[in-house]
Amino acid sequence: MRYSKLFGKSLRAAPKEAESISHKLLSKGGFIDQLAAGVYTFLPLGWQVHSKIANIIRSEMNAIDGQEFSMPVLAPKALWQETNRWKTIDPPLFVTTDRHNKEYALGPTHEEVITDLTRRFVKSYKDLPFAAYQIQDKFRNELRATGGLLRTREFFMKDLYSFHENEADFKDYFKKVIEAYTKIFDKLGLRILVSQASGGSIGGDTTYEFQVPASVGEDIVIFCKACGYAINKQFAEGKNVKNTCPECKEKLSETNAIEAGQVFSLGTKYSKGMGATFVDKNGKERPIIMGCYGIGIGRLMATIVEVSHDEKGIIWPENVSPYQIHLISIGSDKNVARKADEIYAELIKKGVEVLFDDREESPGVKLADVDLLGIPQRWVVSENTLKQDSIEVKKRGEKAAKLVKISTL
Amino acid sequence: MRYSKLFGKSLRAAPKEAESISHKLLSKGGFIDQLAAGVYTFLPLGWQVHSKIANIIRSEMNAIDGQEFSMPVLAPKALWQETNRWKTIDPPLFVTTDRHNKEYALGPTHEEVITDLTRRFVKSYKDLPFAAYQIQDKFRNELRATGGLLRTREFFMKDLYSFHENEADFKDYFKKVIEAYTKIFDKLGLRILVSQASGGSIGGDTTYEFQVPASVGEDIVIFCKACGYAINKQFAEGKNVKNTCPECKEKLSETNAIEAGQVFSLGTKYSKGMGATFVDKNGKERPIIMGCYGIGIGRLMATIVEVSHDEKGIIWPENVSPYQIHLISIGSDKNVARKADEIYAELIKKGVEVLFDDREESPGVKLADVDLLGIPQRWVVSENTLKQDSIEVKKRGEKAAKLVKISTL
Repeated sequence: MRYSKLFGKSLRAAPKEAESISHKLLSKGGFIDQLAAGVYTFLPLGWQVHSKIANIIRSEMNAIDGQEFSMPVLAPKALWQETNRWKTIDPPLFVTTDRHNKEYALGPTHEEVITDLTRRFVKSYKDLPFAAYQIQDKFRNELRATGGLLRTREFFMKDLYSFHENEADFKDYFKKVIEAYTKIFDKLGLRILVSQASGGSIGGDTTYEFQVPASVGEDIVIFCKACGYAINKQFAEGKNVKNTCPECKEKLSETNAIEAGQVFSLGTKYSKGMGATFVDKNGKERPIIMGCYGIGIGRLMATIVEVSHDEKGIIWPENVSPYQIHLISIGSDKNVARKADEIYAELIKKGVEVLFDDREESPGVKLADVDLLGIPQRWVVSENTLKQDSIEVKKRGEKAAKLVKISTL
Repeated sequence: MRYSKLFGKSLRAAPKEAESISHKLLSKGGFIDQLAAGVYTFLPLGWQVHSKIANIIRSEMNAIDGQEFSMPVLAPKALWQETNRWKTIDPPLFVTTDRHNKEYALGPTHEEVITDLTRRFVKSYKDLPFAAYQIQDKFRNELRATGGLLRTREFFMKDLYSFHENEADFKDYFKKVIEAYTKIFDKLGLRILVSQASGGSIGGDTTYEFQVPASVGEDIVIFCKACGYAINKQFAEGKNVKNTCPECKEKLSETNAIEAGQVFSLGTKYSKGMGATFVDKNGKERPIIMGCYGIGIGRLMATIVEVSHDEKGIIWPENVSPYQIHLISIGSDKNVARKADEIYAELIKKGVEVLFDDREESPGVKLADVDLLGIPQRWVVSENTLKQDSIEVKKRGEKAAKLVKISTL
C-alpha cells in the first residue's frame, strides 16, 4: 500500500478528548476515528488489525468445534421481556421503534436470541452438544464512554454459546474454551490473569474474567504470584478473600487490569426461563445446560496498544500488525525514489505486506510516522544506504539498525 | 461437518409466511431463521454461503484498489441534518436515543459518515483518488418486509465510495467498478441487465442497477436482446423510452427483475453540501467528485436461489455452496456406517468441505435433504454400493448417478 493513497493518515496531534495511551496512539496513527462518544470508525489501517485479531479468534473457535453464524442486531422486545432483562440489564438497552410502533433492543448480548433459536431447533439429546459463535456488532448504552476503544457504545464482539445435556459435558467444554482463550491471548502476546468474577447482568455461578494487567485498567485483580490464583477485587470482598491465597497460602498481590474476555457458566438460567428443553436418552424432558463466552475485539486491540508501546508510538506484535514492513525513502534524490519504487514493487510481487511511505515529506515526519504506526520492520532507502548497495533495516522496539545488501533481500 | 451436530437443521415445512421460493427453501433448509419481520439470523449453513459471497465481492473490490474499513451503525443526527436526509430519506430512518437524549440514525447507507471523514482527512489533490468499502450491517425501516432475504430491514451490504479530483478520473473508476460488478455476478452464475435508473434517495445523475431477471423481482426492466441496452421501466417512462431501443432501434423486451446491485455517480452532491473539498494543483479549493456503489449480500444469496433451484430444492453454484460434498449412508448395516465414517474422516483430512449426514434417518429423509440443501455433489454409501467396493456419486441438478470405486476416490 502506498501511504500517499491510504485513506486516513496520521494526525499531527491526538484528539483533545483522548485520555488513554491507546486512544491517543490509535487516533493519531490513523487507525480509528471517533464519530460520536464511544462510537468509532475503523480506518483501513485499524480495520486490518481488527480483522487479524478476529481471524486469530475465529481459528481458535473453529478448533473447539464452534460453528460460526450471525444473529441480527435488532431483537424484539417480547424476547427480552421473557427474561425480564428489557428493564433490568445494565447498562440499559439502546431501543428503536419500527413504523408499526414495535420496539426492538439493539443487542448488547444474545442469550435471548440464541435461547429462542435453540428451543425451536433442538429437540433431542442427539442434537447436543453444540457450540455456535458470531463476530458481530454490539450496542451498550453506557452513560460515559471514554478511553477510546476500551469502553465503547458500539463494538464487535466474538460471542460463543454452548449447549449441553449435563453438567459434566458442560464442564469439559468450559475447560476447552478457557484453553482456547489462553491460546488467543498468548498469540496476541498478552499476559493474562484468569480471575474469578461475578456474573453481573449475564448471570451464572462460575465466571472467569481474562484480565490483562495494565495501569489504565478499570478493574482491580488480586492474584497470587506463586500459584496463579486470581480473583476480581470486588468479587473477592464478597468471598472474604483478603491477603492470603486461598489455594497455596502465599501472600496475594494486586494490580489494575483490563477485562479482555469473560466466560460464564449459565446453567439453566436461560433455558428454564425460556423453555429450551430436550428429550434425554430416557425420554425425559430436561432444560439444556448453557455456557457463554465473550471477547470484545476493539477492546483487545486497545489492550495490545496499552501494554505494547513506547513514548514514540505503538509496537504491534507481528501477527496483528497491519503490515510487516514499513518502507520509506529519504531525501529528494531521484535515484533513491526510483530504487524505493523498485523494492516496493518487488515486495508486492512476493506477496509481502508492505506500507510504502512515498510522500514528499521530511525524513523527520516519515521516521516519526514509522514509530507511531508500530509496524514490526522499518526499511530505509537513502543516498547513504545506496552508496553501499544497501538499505537500512531496523526492528520496531529495538534500537540497533543494520545495513542489508539489496541483493540479499 | 456432521449433520447431526449442525446447529439449525432442515425443517419439515417452510414457515407459513414464506411466499418467495428463496424464502421457503432457505428457511426449510436451515440456512436462515426469521427473528422478526424482515430480520433474520443466518444459521451456520447460511452464514457459510453469505461469507463466501462476501469474500468473492471483497476480492473484486481489492482488485480495483478498494480499501476495506468499517463505519459504525450509529450516526449522530447532526450529520444527517447537514444533508437534510434526517427527515427525507425513504424508507425513513430507524432512530435510537442515548442516555443524554442524543439521537442517532441506524445507518441505512453511509454517504454522510464517509463525507464527514473525507472532509477531515483529505486536504490535497495528493490524497486523491481513493476508494474505500465496507461489508457492514445496514438498517432500513421498511413498512412491509416480505420475500425473505429479498427485502429486509437489517442486512449486510458491501458499500464502496470513491473520491476524485475531476470528472474524467471518476468516469474511469466508475467503469472499473461496473467491470468488477460484472465479474462478481459472473462468478455467482447470475445473468444481469445493467440498467439505467433513477438515483432515488441516494442521488446522482447517472446510476445503473444490476438487475437479475427473475419472476419474483419487484422491478421491471426494459431491455434490448440485440445490443444489451437496459433501463428500469419506471425510469424509462420519464425518459420516454418505449418500444424501440434508443441505441440500435431493435424491438425492446420486458422482464421482472431483482435489483442486486447499484452504482451511483454522486458528483459534488455530498461534498458541496458538507464542505468536503481539496486543494488542487493550482492551489484552488474545489469540492471532491464522489461515486458510491452498493451490493446487498443477503439479497444476492436469495437471488441465486430464485434463479438456481428445482422443485426439490436449491442448486448452489460450487463457489458459494456451504460444502462441496454431501455424504450420506443408507441402511442400518454396521459395515456401511463404518465405511461412511472412514470416508468422512479421509475427506476431512484432505481438507474437503464435506457435510456428512450421520443421523439415523430413513433413506427418504436423507435423500430429500440432499436435494433441499443443494450441495454440488451427493455421495451415497450403502450395502449395494459396497458390494461393488464403490460409492454412488451424483451431481445436484443432474439426473445420472454413477458408481465410483472407493479406491479411486
